Amino acid sequence: MGEKILVIGAGAIGAFYGGVLAKAGCEVSAVARSDFDAVTAGGYRIESHLGDLSWRPAQVVRSAADYKGPADFLFVCVKLTAQTDPVALMRPAVGKDTAIVFVANGIDIDAPVAAAFPDNELVSGVAYAAVSREGGVIKHHSQYTRLVLGRYPGGLSARATRLAELIKQGGSSSVATEDIVGARWQKCAWNTVLNPVSALGGGLGTQDMLASDATTGFVHEAIEEFAAIAAAAGHPIPADTADKLIAGTRKLPNYVSSMGQDQLAGRPMETEALLGNVVRIARRHGVPATRLETLYALLKMAEQRSAS
Amino acid sequence: MGEKILVIGAGAIGAFYGGVLAKAGCEVSAVARSDFDAVTAGGYRIESHLGDLSWRPAQVVRSAADYKGPADFLFVCVKLTAQTDPVALMRPAVGKDTAIVFVANGIDIDAPVAAAFPDNELVSGVAYAAVSREGGVIKHHSQYTRLVLGRYPGGLSARATRLAELIKQGGSSSVATEDIVGARWQKCAWNTVLNPVSALGGGLGTQDMLASDATTGFVHEAIEEFAAIAAAAGHPIPADTADKLIAGTRKLPNYVSSMGQDQLAGRPMETEALLGNVVRIARRHGVPATRLETLYALLKMAEQRSAS
Repeated sequence: MGEKILVIGAGAIGAFYGGVLAKAGCEVSAVARSDFDAVTAGGYRIESHLGDLSWRPAQVVRSAADYKGPADFLFVCVKLTAQTDPVALMRPAVGKDTAIVFVANGIDIDAPVAAAFPDNELVSGVAYAAVSREGGVIKHHSQYTRLVLGRYPGGLSARATRLAELIKQGGSSSVATEDIVGARWQKCAWNTVLNPVSALGGGLGTQDMLASDATTGFVHEAIEEFAAIAAAAGHPIPADTADKLIAGTRKLPNYVSSMGQDQLAGRPMETEALLGNVVRIARRHGVPATRLETLYALLKMAEQRSAS
Repeated sequence: MGEKILVIGAGAIGAFYGGVLAKAGCEVSAVARSDFDAVTAGGYRIESHLGDLSWRPAQVVRSAADYKGPADFLFVCVKLTAQTDPVALMRPAVGKDTAIVFVANGIDIDAPVAAAFPDNELVSGVAYAAVSREGGVIKHHSQYTRLVLGRYPGGLSARATRLAELIKQGGSSSVATEDIVGARWQKCAWNTVLNPVSALGGGLGTQDMLASDATTGFVHEAIEEFAAIAAAAGHPIPADTADKLIAGTRKLPNYVSSMGQDQLAGRPMETEALLGNVVRIARRHGVPATRLETLYALLKMAEQRSAS
């Protein structure tokens, strides 16, 4: 067996990469909570154009404290809501030489993890992958699938390079970067704007948001605000990002974002990770962000309703 | 019998004022559509702290074309959605001396009616009344209930004064004003901001919107935008409007606005009357209105979803 890896947060994305890493010969285990019995009995079933990625974890545990380590990598794939404390989830399994791979959505989300484990290498990950869970089966939809990995807060990393290599061995695409924070900003240009819009429209699909010049114009302006904040934070994104994202989105099916689905279902949303942190960075740098501020205020109200 | 009045759009507000005017001795009729049979059989049942305002229309008709007039007043109480054409609804009952009383929510909504009936007096109405329909019974909740009436686009009006007199005779409060357009701006400071916010948050109650300093701050800033637009349009509202509205709203129960209820139920919303027209006036005058523009773009997307 190769590297010992523990997947924490084995939702669709975590289970998918668990399968890829198992295929690459790693000894992959998983923390499973609500589906502990099903995973113990049958492992994870994954349907993908890459072939059958179904896998059985070496260990299925109810919490990281039950894992027999140490792990070479923790592969942490959690949704960052107000209800989630990723540091607490991973702490029991963080050994002396464990690298923490933090694959989550958002801006300014790595710092608390880095502060909690200052002696461990933190590899931050940005995943581009359309994967969903449908009745016990994980379905991998997207042709373009890529995991960008890099040491937080920046620079070269042998561990990030090794993990990218393993994912490629497992048949998927991955790349190590020296600027993972820049990669986060790049990815969030879409998520920070379109996920909240989808939620606030009552679970809007991608095409609903671009149905008229007026609404497309708003999306464009909001992405431009985001770009100005990224530049002020020292992580400029390409000048044509808004145009490219809108053109790319037009080619997608009328897909409801995860945040849109969360709002429809009354589930917690990644409000702070995706949007609140960006708004606070804008304030800190004095960058005007009225559109994003408005989205943020509305999302906070929507959360209030769900909570009441 | 006194004045002949035809109520068009006898929802909760229309039926309530029909009852008040019937009590004042007017010959009040009503256009009823979905509830034609029920109204024909039993009239309108109205529960109010003002006493029993239940009434039977002199004529119950399925459309204004069936009304045996002419009416002295058309009392038009419609929700202005993209699906509603108030001019078409009232046209068949507009006689030579009929005054049109247009009690609707919104800004810049009277001009099409005035243009369609240039030889009739148009009395525009702004209603403050918490009335709802619950299973065939109209319930009048609010202690503070007032109908502000005035000739459109402005000035003194004997017909408006007469109607206000009749409503007072019927036991409710009403006043004639020389500046009804200003009264519309005053009323909409709340509706233009808080109705869309309620809808976009997924049917937020009044208290949900003011649950934190951040969200209250947003509401305050959006009302300030509205106030600047009102001033540019020549209808300034008092400088402390935002503070007063927020303080007043805190005293209300956690009430979900009509637009919030419409969004939850997937019904058409008064998007253009309440918000789109205000945004267009801001653009015309070059007044910054990014918060209202954002609310408008989001509402247009939400409508798109409902339509698809």
